[in-house]
Amino acid sequence: MTRTTGVDGAEALAILGPDETALVQELDRTFRGWGATAGAREISPPPLYPVTDLEKFDVYANFPHLAFVAGPLDLATGEGKPVDGRFAGADLLDGRYGLPHATCYGAYLFYEGAQVDESTTVTLVNRCFRSEDHYRGLRRLASFQMREIVALGSFEHTQDVVSRFTERILAFSGELGLGLVKEAAIDPFFQNDGARALLQRLSPVKYEFQHGTLAIASVNTHRNFFGERCDIRFGEGGEFAYTSCVAFGLERWLAVLAEVHENDLQAALESVRTAAGRVG
Amino acid sequence: MTRTTGVDGAEALAILGPDETALVQELDRTFRGWGATAGAREISPPPLYPVTDLEKFDVYANFPHLAFVAGPLDLATGEGKPVDGRFAGADLLDGRYGLPHATCYGAYLFYEGAQVDESTTVTLVNRCFRSEDHYRGLRRLASFQMREIVALGSFEHTQDVVSRFTERILAFSGELGLGLVKEAAIDPFFQNDGARALLQRLSPVKYEFQHGTLAIASVNTHRNFFGERCDIRFGEGGEFAYTSCVAFGLERWLAVLAEVHENDLQAALESVRTAAGRVG
Repeated sequence: MTRTTGVDGAEALAILGPDETALVQELDRTFRGWGATAGAREISPPPLYPVTDLEKFDVYANFPHLAFVAGPLDLATGEGKPVDGRFAGADLLDGRYGLPHATCYGAYLFYEGAQVDESTTVTLVNRCFRSEDHYRGLRRLASFQMREIVALGSFEHTQDVVSRFTERILAFSGELGLGLVKEAAIDPFFQNDGARALLQRLSPVKYEFQHGTLAIASVNTHRNFFGERCDIRFGEGGEFAYTSCVAFGLERWLAVLAEVHENDLQAALESVRTAAGRVG
Repeated sequence: MTRTTGVDGAEALAILGPDETALVQELDRTFRGWGATAGAREISPPPLYPVTDLEKFDVYANFPHLAFVAGPLDLATGEGKPVDGRFAGADLLDGRYGLPHATCYGAYLFYEGAQVDESTTVTLVNRCFRSEDHYRGLRRLASFQMREIVALGSFEHTQDVVSRFTERILAFSGELGLGLVKEAAIDPFFQNDGARALLQRLSPVKYEFQHGTLAIASVNTHRNFFGERCDIRFGEGGEFAYTSCVAFGLERWLAVLAEVHENDLQAALESVRTAAGRVG
């Protein structure tokens, strides 16, 4: 059983029950295991960053509509009591913390200013946040869990990770009978970046794996965008590192598996274990 | 290696490196395992709630100074661009979402309006958030991970869980050589509640397990405060459920173990495995 909550009756947030939790954990263990097989160790990012950290990635330039910003209450001028379930902007001190849209930011900040091996791979999971104009339970939440495998180093390494995980996602979802379709998509990171936007039109840098219209995983090539922004270098010449990432929206996998198994979550769990064993 | 970040140079947020992550995961697996042994299944709460949900627990009445409140950007009046790393309150739409201080809220909201078995036990981990006047790396973060085991049902059950976990925490920390001291503490939930505040003075309802001055775990008796606020019932008479919780601050355990093992995290990991095997 999942309990949902939200403002104005929206199903924006979910408390997953025991069967749902077990399934999400099994999925996460599987994707993390793929990362480990690819040589990734795990790091743990926080679900809150200084606005100055997220600004480095143009998040407020490219998708301000998705942003949640957080701040403490202004107790010098206000009482710190909500009225009708809300604090007016004036009741808050400045918003200097941002809630991240995606997990991989933590990887670039972790390696900020560092020299990395040309075939660095790391995995991490985080709570991500998106302010949407509508929510739809597990399929579109204000806060959800995203597991990522991130490649940093040479361009060849980042492309090798993308191609190996593309195969694995298609094989795994095939075993699960999910019938995922791989679709080229637009990566909004580059919409304000002339050169990269042009490159993107020539060669797609984001592919989503969709069940119907719902993207439950994606592979993303960032060229050296994050390497430049975080001054991450590789190789003897100290070039800016290239990066790519593979992302899994865990609650969306749960939603799709529950649908395919007609809400028999025990059967879904067994199908994940069996498929993971075959694809492993 | 842990990377820290924050505003104004504060070490308010941490990205844990691979060795730190492995140790936190081992600790969490241990505490979760204790929960499972006590019959707890796991649920997954979100790190963001409607303000109206957190209001039920008097969080804005009792500790507004700790609160982080989040909202989307007001793109009708503002540009959605931060200035000097901050959004002014006026740049934000109303703050209708609150970041939780503690993990166990998710358990009471999960069971809201429900009838529970008189000896219900559940476990959950969440990212928690506290706005502090100073931060101190892993010892005092703006966002940290808290694992909890929560008991709901009869008063006897809630006290039985508290007493069994008190023994186990002392035995485990003894095996680890942490020298924890159990201290009575004040639970700020009840400071504005006359009857419960009086009871608390007569009989402490919160005990902390401290390493020096740092509390790394606590056991908490809430009587039927959360049962009333969330209309959780038990037994044939439909009485409001009693609750208690056992909480572990995971980054604080990491900080203390790193100190005791002089930053040899591999040795710390092995000591946790050994101690868990002996206490399990």
